[in-house]
Amino acid sequence: MTLPTHLQSMHLPLGDQRTGRFYGQDILSVAQFARDDLEYIFGVAEAMRTMVAHIGTFDLLKGKILANLFYEPSTRTSSSFLAAMERLGGSVIPINEVKYSSVSKGESLPDTVRTLECYADVIVLRHPETGAAAIAAQAARKPIINAGDGIGEHPTQALLDLFTIRQELGRVDGLTVTMLGDLKYGRTVHSLAKLLSLFNVTLNYVSPEILRMPADLIKQLETKGVLQREQRDLDSVLAESDVLYVTRVQKERFENLDEYESVKGAYVITPETMKRAKTKMAVMHPLPRVGEISPDVDSDSRAAYFRQMEYGLYVRMALLAMVLGKA
Amino acid sequence: MTLPTHLQSMHLPLGDQRTGRFYGQDILSVAQFARDDLEYIFGVAEAMRTMVAHIGTFDLLKGKILANLFYEPSTRTSSSFLAAMERLGGSVIPINEVKYSSVSKGESLPDTVRTLECYADVIVLRHPETGAAAIAAQAARKPIINAGDGIGEHPTQALLDLFTIRQELGRVDGLTVTMLGDLKYGRTVHSLAKLLSLFNVTLNYVSPEILRMPADLIKQLETKGVLQREQRDLDSVLAESDVLYVTRVQKERFENLDEYESVKGAYVITPETMKRAKTKMAVMHPLPRVGEISPDVDSDSRAAYFRQMEYGLYVRMALLAMVLGKA
Amino acid sequence: MTLPTHLQSMHLPLGDQRTGRFYGQDILSVAQFARDDLEYIFGVAEAMRTMVAHIGTFDLLKGKILANLFYEPSTRTSSSFLAAMERLGGSVIPINEVKYSSVSKGESLPDTVRTLECYADVIVLRHPETGAAAIAAQAARKPIINAGDGIGEHPTQALLDLFTIRQELGRVDGLTVTMLGDLKYGRTVHSLAKLLSLFNVTLNYVSPEILRMPADLIKQLETKGVLQREQRDLDSVLAESDVLYVTRVQKERFENLDEYESVKGAYVITPETMKRAKTKMAVMHPLPRVGEISPDVDSDSRAAYFRQMEYGLYVRMALLAMVLGKA
Repeated sequence: MTLPTHLQSMHLPLGDQRTGRFYGQDILSVAQFARDDLEYIFGVAEAMRTMVAHIGTFDLLKGKILANLFYEPSTRTSSSFLAAMERLGGSVIPINEVKYSSVSKGESLPDTVRTLECYADVIVLRHPETGAAAIAAQAARKPIINAGDGIGEHPTQALLDLFTIRQELGRVDGLTVTMLGDLKYGRTVHSLAKLLSLFNVTLNYVSPEILRMPADLIKQLETKGVLQREQRDLDSVLAESDVLYVTRVQKERFENLDEYESVKGAYVITPETMKRAKTKMAVMHPLPRVGEISPDVDSDSRAAYFRQMEYGLYVRMALLAMVLGKA
Repeated sequence: MTLPTHLQSMHLPLGDQRTGRFYGQDILSVAQFARDDLEYIFGVAEAMRTMVAHIGTFDLLKGKILANLFYEPSTRTSSSFLAAMERLGGSVIPINEVKYSSVSKGESLPDTVRTLECYADVIVLRHPETGAAAIAAQAARKPIINAGDGIGEHPTQALLDLFTIRQELGRVDGLTVTMLGDLKYGRTVHSLAKLLSLFNVTLNYVSPEILRMPADLIKQLETKGVLQREQRDLDSVLAESDVLYVTRVQKERFENLDEYESVKGAYVITPETMKRAKTKMAVMHPLPRVGEISPDVDSDSRAAYFRQMEYGLYVRMALLAMVLGKA
Repeated sequence: MTLPTHLQSMHLPLGDQRTGRFYGQDILSVAQFARDDLEYIFGVAEAMRTMVAHIGTFDLLKGKILANLFYEPSTRTSSSFLAAMERLGGSVIPINEVKYSSVSKGESLPDTVRTLECYADVIVLRHPETGAAAIAAQAARKPIINAGDGIGEHPTQALLDLFTIRQELGRVDGLTVTMLGDLKYGRTVHSLAKLLSLFNVTLNYVSPEILRMPADLIKQLETKGVLQREQRDLDSVLAESDVLYVTRVQKERFENLDEYESVKGAYVITPETMKRAKTKMAVMHPLPRVGEISPDVDSDSRAAYFRQMEYGLYVRMALLAMVLGKA
């Protein structure tokens, strides 16, 4: 939604019901967050974590309804938002199959959004087209949360990734984060890199030649003073990494299957890999994994990928509470 | 459900818990409503609107479960009932994919309904076959609400349409309602026309020759004293219309595509059209629209179609509360 | 989940919150239940029935979330668990379309379960492969309830079947239970027979030659001292049956369609059949039925199959409350 300017810049005290930072605002892009916004969000997310640990669920959003509008399936993300809303005592209208439904009978996204906001208080949108979330936000009076639009943004994933780093390692400044695998097509690593650029970090990019981090993104981060290094193999940077962010290298990306076969082994994390890593560090993965991390690593205390899922719940609880003015 | 006669005619005071008009009854057809029934329903719907505006949600139906049984997809209608139930503090069993589910493994509709009423307190049914809702109601002990059965009835749509007219224009008697587009196949306009025949209204039908209002329906309304006029073009009646009810003219209805091309422009509402309309009137559409109303009309205060969606929520809240004896 | 041994054998007082028998345990197989476990479960189920009858819903599991993870569609079973959770004030994450969802993008069952337990407090799993529930339980920290895994187990169905017998006839010991139809492939009758072997019962098996009860199961029950008799026709045992458990004879099971045609009539229950049955007995069926029981039998007070559905709700409420430590 487009709020009046005086509301967009409001910085009200936390205790103030139905107000506070992000009240009534859309969550569309990582670009909308300043560093102190992140601290604010993570503070609320931490409070959510504490509350879930102690009492499981609480009625902060009782009486509020979330429309979970997914134009493409993403059970993981939709379940996470659904659980977040339910843990806050709210209700959910799940729309997981827009393609087959009357909603999509040639109806425009703005019309669908305007219909749903008659029923709901906030809309979470997943859409295959880049920019869809911004179009929806333009049409809507109620807040829109972007749950991924095409190769564009997936800001809540980036927020939960950053929150995971902060929770696992206690800080973000001063860390060395190594991103591994498909750095060309993965919107996850792009968005996370952008958020990390707000902090004082070193970024290592380890990927096959054809899946390198896009040059324009590297340049963009350079202008922000981020120290970045590209590597072909993990060994050269593993020992210094505080975070190892693993992504999937998809066979389909390779025209030459020999090339795929030659590189794929280099990007699989095993207990052997972990022996050469720091004793205090975090292995992350957006999941689902399909072979990139051996299940034998799961019992390693540095394997943070399932906790990452859980942190996602707290971040999404925080965002829902915030845009509904209840944080 | 089939109630004993003495219950069917009960007119109990509103304040009486678990009783009151329509308690335990099915909502199957617009034909079941007398004029004072409509006033009663709309009074409850108006109360729902007030309550949503002030407190969002309330626990009137806490502890009640709705089975949303949709044999064909209709995200719009199922979401509306789901939101209605959730806004009243109740829960929903959503069954949106009967075709693919074990429910339909050759099981008869009465058996499915009898199974679901073991779990739920009320069943909303959407079914592709005319008369399905009556068959379900015959089998069920719990109330059935017809959410559309084939080309038959869709009574809650007609009720929300009439409620929209009443809310937008303050009354129904004395109005001129113009129906536009496909008047042959649209069950929406048929049901609305029947409900309007309980009031003192003038009905204009504007459609292509091949999509005229069915002659038998016109005759039926004639016997009730409704003044009806058929027109080929909108201009002749636009200036006197208090309500312009627009429906979609589907290409597929035309054998001769030249004919389609020649008429389709005549049934598109633009800001230009609105200049020739009354200053106080309402443009309605059951949605989704696909070009019948230009998005440029949306900002016109007479564009009532999104508010129509919202009124639908209140009418469905009212119906659920009523059949569960909590209105 | 795998609990420490001292927890697995805990027999704590009922009133003790978050403890009690089955707290934190998985429900994987009928083999895990001793006779006094069944009495305990049925006692809780009976309490659930009373509470539903009096107050409809209650907030015993408020704040708890169930993940309903169905790898194959089973609307009946998933609706039953969903209703059970909602009637106890809890919430549900419904995942009914795993096949089409990102969850299944090559992700292993243990990974999916570990992700979902970040959001939920208990997982109900339906899976096409035998042994899937045990694999999930091995991976999960939270309790897993098996809602059917392949031709393996469907323990909650067997429990509700046994509960139905107990409720309809007041006891289990001393009864003669006749199973009719497809006794070869039906996991329902296999699991029920195993549970019944904990009681003092006589079992009659009536089926076509090619759909006989598996010999190894018969032997297994023999070692437990169960009196079993195989028959080709129902008449020889109908008059002495306290329970007639009817299952579907599927055409597809027969290579020789003449054989199918010759037997199918023998396994259809009609009002004529009921004349030769005891005046106090129960006709059961796991549903859906497709012709095995004439609808004309529905009004017979001995027709227990729809009540069986309802008993299923109470048994599932009991199991959910128990594994979450709230029974």
